[in-house]
Amino acid sequence: MKLHLVNQRLFSTANLISMIKLRASSFSTFSSKREGGVSMVQGASRGLGLEFVKQLLVRNSQEHVIATCRNPNTAAGLIELKKKFSERLHIQKLDLTIDSTIEDCAKAIAEKHGYLNLLVNASGILSIPDVIQPETTLTKVERSSLLLAYEVNAVGPILVTKHMWPLLKAGGGNGSERDVAVVANISARVGSIGDNRLGGWHSYRASKTALNQLTKCVAVEFARKKDPIICILLHPGTVDTDLSKPFQKNVPKDKLFTKEFSVGRLLGIIDSSKSHDNGKFFDWDHKEIVW
Amino acid sequence: MKLHLVNQRLFSTANLISMIKLRASSFSTFSSKREGGVSMVQGASRGLGLEFVKQLLVRNSQEHVIATCRNPNTAAGLIELKKKFSERLHIQKLDLTIDSTIEDCAKAIAEKHGYLNLLVNASGILSIPDVIQPETTLTKVERSSLLLAYEVNAVGPILVTKHMWPLLKAGGGNGSERDVAVVANISARVGSIGDNRLGGWHSYRASKTALNQLTKCVAVEFARKKDPIICILLHPGTVDTDLSKPFQKNVPKDKLFTKEFSVGRLLGIIDSSKSHDNGKFFDWDHKEIVW
Ligand SMILES: NC(=O)c1ccc[n+]([C@@H]2O[C@H](COP(=O)([O-])OP(=O)(O)OC[C@H]3O[C@@H](n4cnc5c(N)ncnc54)[C@H](OP(=O)(O)O)[C@@H]3O)[C@@H](O)[C@H]2O)c1
Ligand SMILES: NC(=O)c1ccc[n+]([C@@H]2O[C@H](COP(=O)([O-])OP(=O)(O)OC[C@H]3O[C@@H](n4cnc5c(N)ncnc54)[C@H](OP(=O)(O)O)[C@@H]3O)[C@@H](O)[C@H]2O)c1
Repeated sequence: MKLHLVNQRLFSTANLISMIKLRASSFSTFSSKREGGVSMVQGASRGLGLEFVKQLLVRNSQEHVIATCRNPNTAAGLIELKKKFSERLHIQKLDLTIDSTIEDCAKAIAEKHGYLNLLVNASGILSIPDVIQPETTLTKVERSSLLLAYEVNAVGPILVTKHMWPLLKAGGGNGSERDVAVVANISARVGSIGDNRLGGWHSYRASKTALNQLTKCVAVEFARKKDPIICILLHPGTVDTDLSKPFQKNVPKDKLFTKEFSVGRLLGIIDSSKSHDNGKFFDWDHKEIVW
Repeated sequence: MKLHLVNQRLFSTANLISMIKLRASSFSTFSSKREGGVSMVQGASRGLGLEFVKQLLVRNSQEHVIATCRNPNTAAGLIELKKKFSERLHIQKLDLTIDSTIEDCAKAIAEKHGYLNLLVNASGILSIPDVIQPETTLTKVERSSLLLAYEVNAVGPILVTKHMWPLLKAGGGNGSERDVAVVANISARVGSIGDNRLGGWHSYRASKTALNQLTKCVAVEFARKKDPIICILLHPGTVDTDLSKPFQKNVPKDKLFTKEFSVGRLLGIIDSSKSHDNGKFFDWDHKEIVW
């Protein structure tokens, strides 16, 4: 029966919930995993996502980490990590632009683990040669860039949150040091409207602003339903990754963080987060950012 | 030469600017129109947009109004108005989801008027039977609704602003009672993240939040370039139109405005707006709304 559900292509939330209940009823069989908890990092092939996976695996010797990426076969950083953490690292395919990969990923986690304590949405796009570039002026704003940035940076993380919701509800804070499960969506300070003094980067800015609003919607619903989950938004600072590379030349050296530093700070915020942080937008230094 | 440009399908901004300069050099031939100014209302077939057109035509006997809609042949309200204001009402086709209609509209205005003093983006979607419905829970959030609302409510108005920019720059406040041309984007209070206490309506909320951010980007650029244009965001209140009809049952009677009342208030805000209002978000009562 369980296998049948897993192999079914159109997998409804109702099915997922019954699977999670089934799994929970045989709790003793996987309760040992609970000691370190189960975390998922979406967008883990490179950059901040990959660094989250590393630090999560290293800091707790019992934590299981699901790392998702578009191309598991070519995700060199994850493949390398898998050699060292073969038992606790689980690599799953997930492309934010393809619904079925999100659904299949939720199914696989439901089957293997039955719950989640943490979801970090770390994916994001700013520039892709010949496809999308941050706009320097309104004249350069195009429909295709606006829609692409929105789909990857705002729509994707919210659909992932939707499909992982039953798993996060099942997990709550159990197995972690927190009272609650956490959804941490990596946003950006440039998504703040109140802080926008320079203009430009229309597609990226608007997509992150929308991600902030969507995350707030979800936070409000989780609170109303008294689910043991909170959602937070995090700005990592300007971090030395592929994403920021083309735009680093005007960044003072001490303002360009390493991935290790930024993710360390963000994990500190995640680990210490409580119910009252639900729906808030923090920078790497734990300061709230205006909307 | 001018006709040639107008009939050309792919019309660049550079071409548009040279046409506007051409038009401006023969200023005396159309300066009489300047006395009332030229306003454009985008999304004028029904609801608030149509009411904007009416009030603009009535309040100033010399003002020219360009009213855009998806289907000029079936826009009954506009066709009716055209009988009375045949000289000053100019109906143009514009579908926010089709770039060429936006470009063609800018071309036609450049040729006929050469400038704009006001652009009201009044279009918007919230629900369309069998296509999009405001979401009551995260479970109902779908990629297609998120993308459609974004394209119509956020992408569309910004692309219209992009293409009308040279015309607004040529017009500034000349011919109106203001110092500056105004772009008034009709947003919604539910687009405010800070004010979001109920959650839900994910697609609509996020699209309006993004519209706010995009408008802020444009406002910052106009100010930096010292263009005689400001952009403002307006919340009309809950107004009795097709858009709000399915959701009126919980609205107290005195909180449900008529189109006449709401548009009267919004025009008051537009007419009194000054440079320091650039980039701000006001409700119908001229109170600022948090981002
Ligand atoms: N770096 C900074 O300075 C900075 C500043 C502020 C905010 N941020 C935010 O931090 C997050 C991480 O950025 P980063 O610097 O680590 O960027 P990065 O090194 O460019 O990594 C981006 C990640 O997103 C993934 N991704 C892109 N499109 C995807 C899709 N359709 N489906 C699934 N995954 C997709 C990429 O996967 P592939 O390998 O398959 O392309 C990659 O793993 C982003 O949300 C970014 O906006 C970064
Ligand atoms: N009514 C309220 O209570 C309320 C509250 C807050 C904010 N608002 C905002 O106020 C604005 C006006 O709303 P309303 O109440 O007047 O709505 P409405 O009566 O439903 O009119 C919506 C208008 O948008 C046009 N439109 C839809 N899709 C379009 C597209 N692809 N291209 C061009 N035009 C398109 C419609 O044209 P067609 O006739 O061709 O469909 C129609 O003219 C909207 O931005 C809305 O979000 C309204």
